[in-house]
Amino acid sequence: MIRVAVIGYGYWGPNLVRNFVEATGTAVHSVCDRRPERLALVQARYPGVRVTTDPEEVFADTAVDAVAIATPVGTHFELALRALQAGKHVLVEKPLAHSAEAAARLVDEAASRNLVLAVDHTFIYSAPVRKMRELVSTGELGELFYYDSVRINLGLFQHDVNVLWDLAVHDLTIMDYVLPQRPVAISATGARHVPNQTDNIAYLTLFFPDNLLGHVHVSWLSPVKLRQTLLGGSRKMVLYNDMDISAPIKVYDSGVTVSTDEEKLHRMLVGYRTGDMLAPRVEAVEALKVEIEHFADCIEHNRRPLADGEAGLRTVTLLEAATESLAARGRPVEIAVPAGV
Amino acid sequence: MIRVAVIGYGYWGPNLVRNFVEATGTAVHSVCDRRPERLALVQARYPGVRVTTDPEEVFADTAVDAVAIATPVGTHFELALRALQAGKHVLVEKPLAHSAEAAARLVDEAASRNLVLAVDHTFIYSAPVRKMRELVSTGELGELFYYDSVRINLGLFQHDVNVLWDLAVHDLTIMDYVLPQRPVAISATGARHVPNQTDNIAYLTLFFPDNLLGHVHVSWLSPVKLRQTLLGGSRKMVLYNDMDISAPIKVYDSGVTVSTDEEKLHRMLVGYRTGDMLAPRVEAVEALKVEIEHFADCIEHNRRPLADGEAGLRTVTLLEAATESLAARGRPVEIAVPAGV
Amino acid sequence: MIRVAVIGYGYWGPNLVRNFVEATGTAVHSVCDRRPERLALVQARYPGVRVTTDPEEVFADTAVDAVAIATPVGTHFELALRALQAGKHVLVEKPLAHSAEAAARLVDEAASRNLVLAVDHTFIYSAPVRKMRELVSTGELGELFYYDSVRINLGLFQHDVNVLWDLAVHDLTIMDYVLPQRPVAISATGARHVPNQTDNIAYLTLFFPDNLLGHVHVSWLSPVKLRQTLLGGSRKMVLYNDMDISAPIKVYDSGVTVSTDEEKLHRMLVGYRTGDMLAPRVEAVEALKVEIEHFADCIEHNRRPLADGEAGLRTVTLLEAATESLAARGRPVEIAVPAGV
Amino acid sequence: MIRVAVIGYGYWGPNLVRNFVEATGTAVHSVCDRRPERLALVQARYPGVRVTTDPEEVFADTAVDAVAIATPVGTHFELALRALQAGKHVLVEKPLAHSAEAAARLVDEAASRNLVLAVDHTFIYSAPVRKMRELVSTGELGELFYYDSVRINLGLFQHDVNVLWDLAVHDLTIMDYVLPQRPVAISATGARHVPNQTDNIAYLTLFFPDNLLGHVHVSWLSPVKLRQTLLGGSRKMVLYNDMDISAPIKVYDSGVTVSTDEEKLHRMLVGYRTGDMLAPRVEAVEALKVEIEHFADCIEHNRRPLADGEAGLRTVTLLEAATESLAARGRPVEIAVPAGV
Repeated sequence: MIRVAVIGYGYWGPNLVRNFVEATGTAVHSVCDRRPERLALVQARYPGVRVTTDPEEVFADTAVDAVAIATPVGTHFELALRALQAGKHVLVEKPLAHSAEAAARLVDEAASRNLVLAVDHTFIYSAPVRKMRELVSTGELGELFYYDSVRINLGLFQHDVNVLWDLAVHDLTIMDYVLPQRPVAISATGARHVPNQTDNIAYLTLFFPDNLLGHVHVSWLSPVKLRQTLLGGSRKMVLYNDMDISAPIKVYDSGVTVSTDEEKLHRMLVGYRTGDMLAPRVEAVEALKVEIEHFADCIEHNRRPLADGEAGLRTVTLLEAATESLAARGRPVEIAVPAGV
Repeated sequence: MIRVAVIGYGYWGPNLVRNFVEATGTAVHSVCDRRPERLALVQARYPGVRVTTDPEEVFADTAVDAVAIATPVGTHFELALRALQAGKHVLVEKPLAHSAEAAARLVDEAASRNLVLAVDHTFIYSAPVRKMRELVSTGELGELFYYDSVRINLGLFQHDVNVLWDLAVHDLTIMDYVLPQRPVAISATGARHVPNQTDNIAYLTLFFPDNLLGHVHVSWLSPVKLRQTLLGGSRKMVLYNDMDISAPIKVYDSGVTVSTDEEKLHRMLVGYRTGDMLAPRVEAVEALKVEIEHFADCIEHNRRPLADGEAGLRTVTLLEAATESLAARGRPVEIAVPAGV
Repeated sequence: MIRVAVIGYGYWGPNLVRNFVEATGTAVHSVCDRRPERLALVQARYPGVRVTTDPEEVFADTAVDAVAIATPVGTHFELALRALQAGKHVLVEKPLAHSAEAAARLVDEAASRNLVLAVDHTFIYSAPVRKMRELVSTGELGELFYYDSVRINLGLFQHDVNVLWDLAVHDLTIMDYVLPQRPVAISATGARHVPNQTDNIAYLTLFFPDNLLGHVHVSWLSPVKLRQTLLGGSRKMVLYNDMDISAPIKVYDSGVTVSTDEEKLHRMLVGYRTGDMLAPRVEAVEALKVEIEHFADCIEHNRRPLADGEAGLRTVTLLEAATESLAARGRPVEIAVPAGV
Repeated sequence: MIRVAVIGYGYWGPNLVRNFVEATGTAVHSVCDRRPERLALVQARYPGVRVTTDPEEVFADTAVDAVAIATPVGTHFELALRALQAGKHVLVEKPLAHSAEAAARLVDEAASRNLVLAVDHTFIYSAPVRKMRELVSTGELGELFYYDSVRINLGLFQHDVNVLWDLAVHDLTIMDYVLPQRPVAISATGARHVPNQTDNIAYLTLFFPDNLLGHVHVSWLSPVKLRQTLLGGSRKMVLYNDMDISAPIKVYDSGVTVSTDEEKLHRMLVGYRTGDMLAPRVEAVEALKVEIEHFADCIEHNRRPLADGEAGLRTVTLLEAATESLAARGRPVEIAVPAGV
């Protein structure tokens, strides 16, 4: 039984606690939050769980095997580092840290201590995303052409991070998991519409080897909520609509056909074909439940999580590059090789 | 009665001919196309219309008052110039010409001869786009924040132009008509997935003064057809879905609210409000019919068309800048002032 | 070359004329309409076609091989009878006649003269409906459970017929074509909301052998336009949405599973399974074009049309029974056996 | 503080318990269920709540003020009667009882003891349904023409009740709340597709005074889930789509116009107009939360609930009539006057 302490009981923390409680193999030992009223809520819901406002108490407690961190991004690094140094396995809410340098430091710390460092890239544990990866890895889509994602809604403005770090981070983690290639450069544009606030709308282009093109549109200022990804290949194409409960994944047997007919040289050489569309059944499981069980399994068998520290580092590296490009109106920024570890 | 000659009877030409035939105030005098089989079709459908494979015949005919050009982009400039020089009023399919230099030359020629030079920016004559312009100009949307458009489908690859010149041109003309500001810089990215072909997917960011941000996503390689625009303002936001026949325009009474409450300083200062959504009735008229009648009216009363040569020049200028930025992976390109005439 | 006369150039007649003109194997000899202004339109569009206000001229003309009738329902019988008596093959717009007695008389007349009598049940020539029939006849759907159709919109009220004869007639013809069984009884309900008018909303239940249940909802008074049919079988189910251009047919691998597990006797014995959904590619052809060519083919090779006089008679028989039941608030009406010919 | 005992901790019971726990003014005193494993779940979640397998313990406990019953339909009557006889206020899951006779007996018992008898007609406490009632009662829709509801999905077959008692009951309760009139007759049709099971698909027509027509389509055998109601009036029409989270209520400014123009007598006299569509903002509150607080308020202030015993009786009366008509293939059944109390 792995005993977990959860730090941060705001928006996401309660989901972590609930899943650690319900999972076989894990138990919630304690919950830490600076706000007493949040801890009172924990006590009402889970009388057996200890509560504290001081994370150091958690780190010092030898009964705690692992720490899950669900606090504002700016605090991830210090809390995760202290937890690792105290010998705890760590699960950090995305993004792993506020900078690539800090993320790399955490990766090193975990490696040197042989501890599990997992990042809460929840989406990669969801059934539709795993289906996309399967379609890519089996070659069913053919050569990959583009990955295009829209993730917009009317949302609360974050204080500490811009819309890239809040929303595009999801798409970067999904791409990291689904696509076999790593981006080599990035171009980002965006705008801020509220004084003294961060960018609330942003567009991201990711350049991959072999003409694969990635693009992400994120916004906190859309009157409609869209969660839609197109993944186009030479053989088939996928539409992943996270809002469509009944058919989140649609596979289109459509594409490009290049004619080599000499006689048609003066006419169109590239046409398209449209075929059947298949919406495969996708199991309705809670991604976080799968992730939690995977985290426990990694600790128990000393395995590397799907979303490990390196994945977290790669994502933060891209976010840094995107933020740099955004400030320069789309000027492309090369991605340093280490991010492609 | 304005007698019109239509040059080019391929995809779009038949629509022009039909509308010139049916409009009161215009008549089709002749149709010109290099392909005899296309002219045979004209003769079957319109026994009274003259046909020719030689555009010079059209220019020389004093019975022709105006010339409509619906040929490949590369031929627009020469045909339009010859028509103007022959003293004909001219309507050119979009884009006006293959380069800003050529477009400017046409503008000058028309001005010096006091002839009407119109560009076939069809969408600005459609009811939903006119509704958007009305919502902007009356101030109902408040301060403008962003214009975001998606125009993708599985489409035939064009030989002579990339996807920007084929599809994004529509959005550039709509923005030119709807928005009160002109873009000052542009960043574009894209990719080509078929050897020896032009870019078939592209993303365009347009930087306007006052933090207004424009973005266009175009593709010939999407398994689904989308024609969707979001126009966000400080007071209201609009969703224009050209595929939704019953409600192409939806106006959302939603937006951002900035709190100045001092006590909330440590908490969220920017939230959002959601309110009613109104889908105003939009008349179902054929945009091309409105445009044709407007063209005839401009000739008759010596007026300047809504989509005049300058609008055509501005659009071509943006397409040139976008193509330049696209080749440089999104490096921003400033828009020369003359385009903002 | 089969020379056709079209009687009635109102809403549907122009579509018939256009398709007879464009089909190989048929030519339009003449058009008849009581309204001179409609005939003027014909002359403008088709200078070579003769026009007349007197149908007897058409019947008397030995150059006419076949007559297509697109007039109000109340006139179908007399015009079709006169055409058959004059030795012409006949295509009648649906429904075949205003009563089963009249329809039967036409069937007999055509049979005794060995002439082709076709009814314009356009939908059965459309690609989605043919796909449904294929799914049924190959057994892919398994045992048939239900056919449920909704056909509603804000529509013009008809003078001479109620909403059943105007809209439900489509579903009755589709069922007649797709389903292997014939209804044995019918129950209908409805209402009229405008004084001195016919019923404008109606619901129809059709009882078939073997527990197959049919239902049709039609209305001229719906603010939204729906054209949606569910066809449920023991193995698979079909959703046919005629408004969904990209995926009009969706096949669901879903259904009922009956458990025979003795130990579960106290619990639920019937559950459901959900599986993949497939939207097969459906060719975009104009149904009327297919139908016209089929009509010409039947005349040429002395074949019986898919929608022959008997199909027309069966449909009218059901409409009569439905109208009778509707007046009696749903009291079931048995279907006379001859209708099931 | 009203102390509540909940009987039945299967599908719906946990929702009742959670809401009684969270509501101010109520507390959960005990939970009763025949299955020990369900009670173990209660104890894990709510350590302070008493559990028992014997309902008589609940009735005998003077600390219990009110009893909520969420057991199979067949047991409602006896449990509710015993609870009332023990002096408890009662909330019964819908439908109130298995027969109108039993329901009437409960109404009398509650009245004679001056106890609150509420039925769990949850939908009438939801924001969209309350909006519909508001649109009706303010006259915004004009004269009411029809109420049409579709409530279908792939669902578990119930043992003890047919699909009418399981699904149509929702629409009957909504109509009872929203419409100012009571039905005078009913016609129902349906079918059963699994041996030894009840009807799994059914259609219901309700005849109201003044040409108002009601219709309900329910099914456990649809591959798609639909929850859609159309409410049409002479001035406006409403589309209530319970699956559309962002716009559950749409109000169409569309309708019928009757021309009295004498000159048009030979032409169409009834046309339609289409206008704006408004989707008013509808608050996202949990209907059950509203209902629970209303129940507590009724007990405290001795008020009659919106969904009282009479409403429950009216609904059961209609279900009985519908079941009778269904067995007779749609033969209309008059509704006894007492149901219209």
